[in-house]
Amino acid sequence: MAIRLAELAVRYGCELHGDPDLEVSAVATLGEATEGCIAFLANPGYQKFLADTRATAVILNAAAAESCNVACLVAENPYAVYASIATELYPPPALRPGVHKLAIVGEGASVPDSCELSPGVVIGRNVQLGERVYLGPNCVIGDDSVIAHDTRLMANVSVYQDVHIGARCNIHAGTVIGSDGFGIAQSAQGWLKVPQIGGVRIGDDVEIGATCTIDRGAIDSTEIAAGVKLDNQVHIAHNVQIGAHSAIAGQTGISGSSRIGERCVMGGQVAISGHLTIADDVFLMGRSIVTKSINQSGTYSSVLSVEEAGKWRKLAARFKRLESMAARIKALEVKLKSSMDGEN
Amino acid sequence: MAIRLAELAVRYGCELHGDPDLEVSAVATLGEATEGCIAFLANPGYQKFLADTRATAVILNAAAAESCNVACLVAENPYAVYASIATELYPPPALRPGVHKLAIVGEGASVPDSCELSPGVVIGRNVQLGERVYLGPNCVIGDDSVIAHDTRLMANVSVYQDVHIGARCNIHAGTVIGSDGFGIAQSAQGWLKVPQIGGVRIGDDVEIGATCTIDRGAIDSTEIAAGVKLDNQVHIAHNVQIGAHSAIAGQTGISGSSRIGERCVMGGQVAISGHLTIADDVFLMGRSIVTKSINQSGTYSSVLSVEEAGKWRKLAARFKRLESMAARIKALEVKLKSSMDGEN
Amino acid sequence: MAIRLAELAVRYGCELHGDPDLEVSAVATLGEATEGCIAFLANPGYQKFLADTRATAVILNAAAAESCNVACLVAENPYAVYASIATELYPPPALRPGVHKLAIVGEGASVPDSCELSPGVVIGRNVQLGERVYLGPNCVIGDDSVIAHDTRLMANVSVYQDVHIGARCNIHAGTVIGSDGFGIAQSAQGWLKVPQIGGVRIGDDVEIGATCTIDRGAIDSTEIAAGVKLDNQVHIAHNVQIGAHSAIAGQTGISGSSRIGERCVMGGQVAISGHLTIADDVFLMGRSIVTKSINQSGTYSSVLSVEEAGKWRKLAARFKRLESMAARIKALEVKLKSSMDGEN
Repeated sequence: MAIRLAELAVRYGCELHGDPDLEVSAVATLGEATEGCIAFLANPGYQKFLADTRATAVILNAAAAESCNVACLVAENPYAVYASIATELYPPPALRPGVHKLAIVGEGASVPDSCELSPGVVIGRNVQLGERVYLGPNCVIGDDSVIAHDTRLMANVSVYQDVHIGARCNIHAGTVIGSDGFGIAQSAQGWLKVPQIGGVRIGDDVEIGATCTIDRGAIDSTEIAAGVKLDNQVHIAHNVQIGAHSAIAGQTGISGSSRIGERCVMGGQVAISGHLTIADDVFLMGRSIVTKSINQSGTYSSVLSVEEAGKWRKLAARFKRLESMAARIKALEVKLKSSMDGEN
Repeated sequence: MAIRLAELAVRYGCELHGDPDLEVSAVATLGEATEGCIAFLANPGYQKFLADTRATAVILNAAAAESCNVACLVAENPYAVYASIATELYPPPALRPGVHKLAIVGEGASVPDSCELSPGVVIGRNVQLGERVYLGPNCVIGDDSVIAHDTRLMANVSVYQDVHIGARCNIHAGTVIGSDGFGIAQSAQGWLKVPQIGGVRIGDDVEIGATCTIDRGAIDSTEIAAGVKLDNQVHIAHNVQIGAHSAIAGQTGISGSSRIGERCVMGGQVAISGHLTIADDVFLMGRSIVTKSINQSGTYSSVLSVEEAGKWRKLAARFKRLESMAARIKALEVKLKSSMDGEN
Repeated sequence: MAIRLAELAVRYGCELHGDPDLEVSAVATLGEATEGCIAFLANPGYQKFLADTRATAVILNAAAAESCNVACLVAENPYAVYASIATELYPPPALRPGVHKLAIVGEGASVPDSCELSPGVVIGRNVQLGERVYLGPNCVIGDDSVIAHDTRLMANVSVYQDVHIGARCNIHAGTVIGSDGFGIAQSAQGWLKVPQIGGVRIGDDVEIGATCTIDRGAIDSTEIAAGVKLDNQVHIAHNVQIGAHSAIAGQTGISGSSRIGERCVMGGQVAISGHLTIADDVFLMGRSIVTKSINQSGTYSSVLSVEEAGKWRKLAARFKRLESMAARIKALEVKLKSSMDGEN
């Protein structure tokens, strides 16, 4: 499929520099682009590739447009315009509707003809699928779960019973939704398992990466609101609530019953303790650890980045002696005061 | 199923306040409970919901009983009593014994009639299953492995060869048991793979969360003792030994050959280096990192929690200058001493 | 299979102490070895087991040979020699070539007769497999992907479309290769998904542990060079490049577009921010976090290890007051200077 620049400019509200009849049919990076490709410039670190790009057109902001020697679409948010154009050029693969002969559909399940159930799929009793749901090979859906229209599950996804997934979601391979929360009670006989009888509720337009784990609630449900985006290997414990349009990078873990606000952004490997509340619009730098509720939107961090190991070893040793450093400062203050008092 | 409060009080040794003939048939949170529900109060943070609860009965301790306006079961350990009552009200789903026509059973395998093998299950040669084992859809069990009675594996679990799993275990979806340990030897030709020929031994009553990885031993076996509970995404490296009744929260990693004592508790995202010994009854706060053996029971931490990013940046910069701060303190001490010596 | 010590000594260039006609047929640890076993000593922590070992022979270095009471193979790198001998004694299981009746092969796929496709395998259209490829139960391979000869995928591995995997690789259960990178663009309507159209290129002799996730590139490919070794639960984001013979321990995450050099070694739970460059031969201690490029080979760390919780709490509190400590030092310096100036 080829699209005229004029058409793209109109559709995405961009100012067009260059020949409106040029057509693009593929995306590429500035450095690798050839004729017929559209590239974009969003991260200033890649500006150095702009001057020599062989792209037919580049999506960029007004400031960068001056240094561009090929056609360009000038946008306030070049990355968002790129996302939209790339989605036009690379739509998800068309479904091949039907239930494969090696797929198993449980009693009472509702599977519209527009769905594609791949080989190895196993769906339980009374499962309800919306129109055009795609279930990749070896996906398993537990009894009474509901998946709304146009949602796609890639290979080997495990969904337990009583899980509701909204429309237009993408769920990547190996992810598990609805596993038991980590509910255990100490007793004289060791740990007692606490039955996890809540479900999981996932809103529309949610993206969930590969091998994530989203536990079912202990009594009420775990809830992920519309528009949330999770990267790979994210762990969401029981009864967590994640507000709409929050985005969470890889290997982050959120402990039980914590509530994350709307439009929060977390870097990778973040840890959030249980039973906390995080306000809307909180940005957590990667590897941050949160042990108390955060009531104010803003950016938070707890990162100490690497140093050469010898230098770090000294810093760590000093850190471990902070108490004695504080005591020495106190002693100096006392001595200096008495010395100066003595002078007067 | 409905149970009389009188019966519950006797069975779990609770003092009963209220009408012994009241019946409960469901659990609920204090806030959401309606008639026929039993709730519990264990975390003081939820005490505020007690006064207005519409639960038929609440499990709580003696101190909280005074503020309770409905029937209650007074227990020393309300959460453990709740776990037991909830297990009565919500037993695991009954098995549907049989081997599905899309399950594959290897030569020489022993599968009692009481087992349920779901579609897509593949079990290898000479596998031995105990009575009433449940294998969820698409579970794979390698040659010569043994799974004792009443153990349940949820969907898409991968068990390699020569793995022994005890009785009454629950293993959640996507978990891998018996993968090769990370054994590699440096050589002039690059890394050489070190064959991992040990197995895995898992005791009775072990719970393993979703997408955990438990590596097989390099020569001897990796061992997880009875009653251990692992949350999701826990990584157990080769030849680790975990003592009975230890509980480990999500995304924790334990490096090769380390030995964890009995009744240890770890928060999430803990890291333990290799070849260490951790004593019994050690509690590690979430995100702790352990690089030396711990010989004393007790609570340990290494957490620095988030601050607003601007404030944190200053703290991190100061931290990186701890050596110079120490030098300045030393200089002050010397100067002050020489100044005071000079006075005398 | 039994091998004479004389033969092993010649094959691996070791000096042999003891009877060259002794034979070994199994490996064991020093402590557990019995007749016919060969053991090794590489980690000095295990030297204490040497004197009493009942192994038929031990692989060790020249210094340790003096304390050895049984036959030994003296090597500069005992662990590498052990790896080679163990690989001879424990070769990977022989393939049982053929396509299982419950495996699905897509149109246009090329599957040599020497391959083993286990039950539940689903391979897409135009997939190309090399000779002797092993696909474990329930593996899924997307359209147009290529897997070179002698590579083995264990159970439940998910490979997406357009993924190239080299020869002699081992990929462990539950791993996902080619999932969409975490590409999202902020917009007034919430996050827009950025299509991830690049592939994944994996070199020869790569080992990938269990439940790893390796995302496909956004436009160009994610690349893992020959000889790289990844432990379990490693997360490789889109467009990352990992240089040849690097080794990365469990639960490490590498953010998008970062380039790792050759022969780098990372401990577990390391985090690397996006768009960085790490030089060749960089060693990162476990749990390190890297937020800037590293241009010099060497060892780097950012670990603060646990203390008893009460002591740690004081240290953390002091850390949070580093600014005020610095101010107090400054005040002391000023006061002392003015006091000493006053004296003159």
